[in-house]
Amino acid sequence: MTAQQLFWFIPLASILALGFAFYFFRKMRKESEGTDTMKTIARHVRKGAMAYLKQQYKIVTIVFVVLAAFFALLAYGFGVQNTWVPFAFITGGFFSGLAGFIGMKTATYASARTANAAQYSLNRGLKVAFRSGAVMGLVVVGLGLLDISLWYLLLDTFVEEATAAEKLIIITTTMLTFGMGASTQALFARVGGGIYTKAADVGADLVGKVEAGIPEDDPRNPATIADNVGDNVGDVAGMGADLYESYCGSILATAALGAAAFMAYPELQLKAVFAPMLIAATGIVLSIIGIFLVRTHEGANMKKLLAALGRGVNTSSVLIAAATFGILYALGLENWIGLSLSVISGLAAGIIIGQTTEYYTSHSYKPTQRIARSAETGPATVIISGIGTGMVSTAIPVLTIGAAIVMAYLFAINFDVAHIMSAQNLSIGLYGIGIAAVGMLSTLGITLATDAYGPIADNAGGNAEMSGLDKEVRKRTDALDALGNTTAATGKGFAIGSAALTALALLASYIEEIKIGIARLDTQAANFFAATGKPVKEATIPDFMEYFQINLMNPKVLVGMFTGAMMAFLFCGLTMNAVGRAAQNMVEEVRRQFREIKGILTGQATPDYARCVAISTRGAQREMLFPSLLAIAAPVLMGVIFGVAGVMGLLVGGLAAGFVLAVFMANAGGAWDNAKKYIEEGNLGGKGSDNHKATVVGDTVGDPFKDTSGPSLNILIKLMSMVSIVMAGLTVAFSIL
Amino acid sequence: MTAQQLFWFIPLASILALGFAFYFFRKMRKESEGTDTMKTIARHVRKGAMAYLKQQYKIVTIVFVVLAAFFALLAYGFGVQNTWVPFAFITGGFFSGLAGFIGMKTATYASARTANAAQYSLNRGLKVAFRSGAVMGLVVVGLGLLDISLWYLLLDTFVEEATAAEKLIIITTTMLTFGMGASTQALFARVGGGIYTKAADVGADLVGKVEAGIPEDDPRNPATIADNVGDNVGDVAGMGADLYESYCGSILATAALGAAAFMAYPELQLKAVFAPMLIAATGIVLSIIGIFLVRTHEGANMKKLLAALGRGVNTSSVLIAAATFGILYALGLENWIGLSLSVISGLAAGIIIGQTTEYYTSHSYKPTQRIARSAETGPATVIISGIGTGMVSTAIPVLTIGAAIVMAYLFAINFDVAHIMSAQNLSIGLYGIGIAAVGMLSTLGITLATDAYGPIADNAGGNAEMSGLDKEVRKRTDALDALGNTTAATGKGFAIGSAALTALALLASYIEEIKIGIARLDTQAANFFAATGKPVKEATIPDFMEYFQINLMNPKVLVGMFTGAMMAFLFCGLTMNAVGRAAQNMVEEVRRQFREIKGILTGQATPDYARCVAISTRGAQREMLFPSLLAIAAPVLMGVIFGVAGVMGLLVGGLAAGFVLAVFMANAGGAWDNAKKYIEEGNLGGKGSDNHKATVVGDTVGDPFKDTSGPSLNILIKLMSMVSIVMAGLTVAFSIL
Repeated sequence: MTAQQLFWFIPLASILALGFAFYFFRKMRKESEGTDTMKTIARHVRKGAMAYLKQQYKIVTIVFVVLAAFFALLAYGFGVQNTWVPFAFITGGFFSGLAGFIGMKTATYASARTANAAQYSLNRGLKVAFRSGAVMGLVVVGLGLLDISLWYLLLDTFVEEATAAEKLIIITTTMLTFGMGASTQALFARVGGGIYTKAADVGADLVGKVEAGIPEDDPRNPATIADNVGDNVGDVAGMGADLYESYCGSILATAALGAAAFMAYPELQLKAVFAPMLIAATGIVLSIIGIFLVRTHEGANMKKLLAALGRGVNTSSVLIAAATFGILYALGLENWIGLSLSVISGLAAGIIIGQTTEYYTSHSYKPTQRIARSAETGPATVIISGIGTGMVSTAIPVLTIGAAIVMAYLFAINFDVAHIMSAQNLSIGLYGIGIAAVGMLSTLGITLATDAYGPIADNAGGNAEMSGLDKEVRKRTDALDALGNTTAATGKGFAIGSAALTALALLASYIEEIKIGIARLDTQAANFFAATGKPVKEATIPDFMEYFQINLMNPKVLVGMFTGAMMAFLFCGLTMNAVGRAAQNMVEEVRRQFREIKGILTGQATPDYARCVAISTRGAQREMLFPSLLAIAAPVLMGVIFGVAGVMGLLVGGLAAGFVLAVFMANAGGAWDNAKKYIEEGNLGGKGSDNHKATVVGDTVGDPFKDTSGPSLNILIKLMSMVSIVMAGLTVAFSIL
Repeated sequence: MTAQQLFWFIPLASILALGFAFYFFRKMRKESEGTDTMKTIARHVRKGAMAYLKQQYKIVTIVFVVLAAFFALLAYGFGVQNTWVPFAFITGGFFSGLAGFIGMKTATYASARTANAAQYSLNRGLKVAFRSGAVMGLVVVGLGLLDISLWYLLLDTFVEEATAAEKLIIITTTMLTFGMGASTQALFARVGGGIYTKAADVGADLVGKVEAGIPEDDPRNPATIADNVGDNVGDVAGMGADLYESYCGSILATAALGAAAFMAYPELQLKAVFAPMLIAATGIVLSIIGIFLVRTHEGANMKKLLAALGRGVNTSSVLIAAATFGILYALGLENWIGLSLSVISGLAAGIIIGQTTEYYTSHSYKPTQRIARSAETGPATVIISGIGTGMVSTAIPVLTIGAAIVMAYLFAINFDVAHIMSAQNLSIGLYGIGIAAVGMLSTLGITLATDAYGPIADNAGGNAEMSGLDKEVRKRTDALDALGNTTAATGKGFAIGSAALTALALLASYIEEIKIGIARLDTQAANFFAATGKPVKEATIPDFMEYFQINLMNPKVLVGMFTGAMMAFLFCGLTMNAVGRAAQNMVEEVRRQFREIKGILTGQATPDYARCVAISTRGAQREMLFPSLLAIAAPVLMGVIFGVAGVMGLLVGGLAAGFVLAVFMANAGGAWDNAKKYIEEGNLGGKGSDNHKATVVGDTVGDPFKDTSGPSLNILIKLMSMVSIVMAGLTVAFSIL
């Protein structure tokens, strides 16, 4: 088959994904939602979640309109930007939001149904929850590839360039800019949702559990509905938008790198562009197969459940590794074996990072047990050892990503170590790194299902508790929830690892955008290259590095790097403070209700749930704006002052520090959570003991670590790259130093 | 005067510093040590501190012997290193250790005398404590400049090179290697001392204050002597070794950059080398003047005391700014105005960072008050808002250092923006950044005095409490202590800021070492440069950047940067965990004593202080080895695997992430400390309230942040650069990729 023929497999796979998502959704809707109380609670949560999302989309729409107008001005007014950018930006944002919306809609329908199904058996509960999670997984990959295919077809029809090779470069770099729309949407979703969920969670815990002494998810707690809403808006809608962005970003960046790397080989170029899309498309099919493999016998225990999930995910991973060789061979890429091994480097790195995350955050292992034991000397030592463990836990993931980068590069250049840094090898090696990121995310359909399944199970537990279902049922939903925590660790490994690799690929794509910008806008630079006997379009990455002096002794680069590293911390600090403030408001409201509405604690009066939901919503909306706009503004300002060198410094500094910080925050948060659970399981004095109280402090601190600041960093890293890519024309046309 | 004549001012100033240090020491010794109890307590602390230092120096000596032998092997066996390195390394370590030793000896003599003097008046107490702190300040700068002058004279006599210009380059780069000795000593002192002091402090607080409910420094607490010993070994000996290293490092790196930048202008080269030394020498004289200005009337209040200290420090700063113009003019440097303004950029940055630190950590301002208020919702929100505030507080210091880098660079190149990155301008601009670091540290004699004064006042308070002196006296020592906390904030600003600038200067010096290494060892690279018509010795920094492809798209650089950022976190995590473990041992010992030695809490039996001292000592020694050796090993391994590009990535990544992380940890720790003090002063419920207990948790977490991990990062950043510089020959001769 020709590459053009193979292309049709991509939209086909995306439609397949959407079809199965619809099928799973319909099947879930047919399940019973249980008793009237269960329905009412589910409706409360659904209403709260939708109200939040409506409010969120309102604000995000304003931001999008302003930014799109600004891009239109740059494109049509000043001519410093590709004319497709405003449209690409908007569709990226729209589809990213849509993925989150559908995922959340599904999750809020599924939770009561999962609780109801759990009344029959653990297996039935698992099936409802997991297949509902799969809706989200498949919607994300389906919409992602659909958007990519449609844009490709559109641009292929309308873009006119002298040569086919140049046309493909314009197409791929233009498509890349829709990533910024997805990133912007994702950042708002993650930050807003993250603040919402943790403000509600922390607020509910602090007054409910600690002060009033009532259990989690108790209907007497006014913040309990808000807490359940939070799981949906943060962990489902936020994560959906986030991973939509990662998925598209890695595919698009790799396609752009492929177009650039193989520009001199027209017979290979198109294949290199299609390769990441085809790997992703195949991943969809294999994910669907994997999803169907997740089933177990009635009466299966926890271990068997985990095995069932593992079977699905692992089968998909093994199959995609094998299939990659087939795809790249069928495409007729010269070094198909090497590039396939690059893909496997990425996959392997994702798995190793996931395993490491599990080691450092599961209470089956020493690190988390040590944190639990440090509770014997009070909350302070719980915090110290959690932070210490989190920081130490960054070592293996970072070294793994480092190894994956080097291996993906070396495989892609066929171990041509003697010319390891030649211009041609550099381009192909970077393409190898990009395709490793695609490999890591290729099975997103199923890994995201295991991730999205978590909050559904969590909400099912909440519903069961609040509707007063049997202890046995609650035990089952707890088991489902615990399972979700374990798979979430692996999911986080993939999310963080792929963000780092994708950001690297985006960095390389930035150079391509600058190249195009110079060819169009900067006569001085264009003349310089012409004088060297090499027109801009033929200039290599090392040529640009030299021209802009993007080296480590350039003070512009260094200042950029300092600023980038600082941005990661500043952003985290702002979101941490936002959660603190929003939680404080929630605490005050819950205390007020306990004080003013008589009979709440005895169960004679119903608390005012809606007001807590409204407070979380307002808090999240108010708090998300500044950090998000800062993330967008920073690369623009850096470009205007320090030019390309400063921007590259900013991106690399932000990437290096942000990646390590994100791993630290995710792992410290996870470890604190499970240290608490370890004690709750009856160790070291069990629930209610002083040790337990000390670990509750750790868990509360860990909440914004792992669910607000940490995951938002993944997006920050990529968004800053995306903004730089979109703004490349402006940076080329104007900078002070 | 000729430059050669001006040189003699440098050793002269250093001898002047040592002379005044001896004078202040003698005067302090003549003061009375007070009652017998006071003497006994002071003796206990002194004995414990000296026992610790003896143990510490034993282990460090073994490390030094092994490393020196390794260097000797590299130098004499394989010929890949300068033959002076083993000796330079040892003297750097020796003098750094000596500075710490003398400072600590003085501090342990001074504390009881300060307490005794405080019985008469606040002013008298201040004078004893401050002048004792000045001993340390003057010993550090005196020994530093003495070592530098002696080595210069020695090498000037023995080094033989073809031209005077080349000789000066060999001399300055050789001298730089004694910085590694100082760094290694400093790292062990900071890490070991930092673990010791916080293990004792946390241990004493957790059992004493929280469990047994006895006040700080109560003689019934078995860990109280260890706690006081800790202040001396961590904050005095550790800080002394640390700043000795910063001081020498910035001067030596700048001298090396001066020799390289002005190589083509023999009449300027020597002047550029002497300039940083002369600024430092002048700084010594002005610091001594400043020290004499610190005096106040009898019966002065806190505000007047602060004004007195401020007068001393500010006068020295203003005078050095003015004097710099004179020195550089007298030296006859062409762009003396621009370079003087570079120095002032550094000074100004140090002051701004100090002010920012004060804003974020003093309870006179909102951020710390907000942390205190978050205690109303318990310890978890105290931790969340402390971490949030600490992270946000990194913004201004990082932007300030960024601005200082850019301004120092631009001033040095006379605002030649059109050729901002020409090879010549790059060299001179980097020299400007180096000289900005020297400016920041030029008044170290007095700023270190205000820093070292802190633990002396702290120990005086401990002595007063334990010997049961009057409440009024304790109030005075508390005032002195509080004053120390405020000045410490400024001191920290200078320490962190100068570390960042010095590390940058060291980075540039690394290139010079590589250049020399290539000329001697790497014929392939040497031939490459020869073929371009430019022998290695004339190759510029951009030439090397291009040859080694030290740009931001090189995967070796990127992997190096990831690893560098990770190293900062790993190192922090290891030291945090070390404090946690050592503190846990201390807690168990204190609990055991309360349990087994009857009558401790009623005051009828004396606790076994010595055993707690021994536990802290053993814990610190055991725990300091691994992180310290890791810091030394990382750049060596990186060089062996990834060569020069990987090492540069490691250093820059470590610098960017480490700098921001260090600011975060120092400020979060300081803010928690003062949030607690804010409540102790009677706000929000005051001492003993639940709010107070919540902030005690914050303070305990902050202890290792601000006194162990944070300050150790400053050294880590520089030590990794120093190791790379010393190992440059090995990296040039051998690397895998």
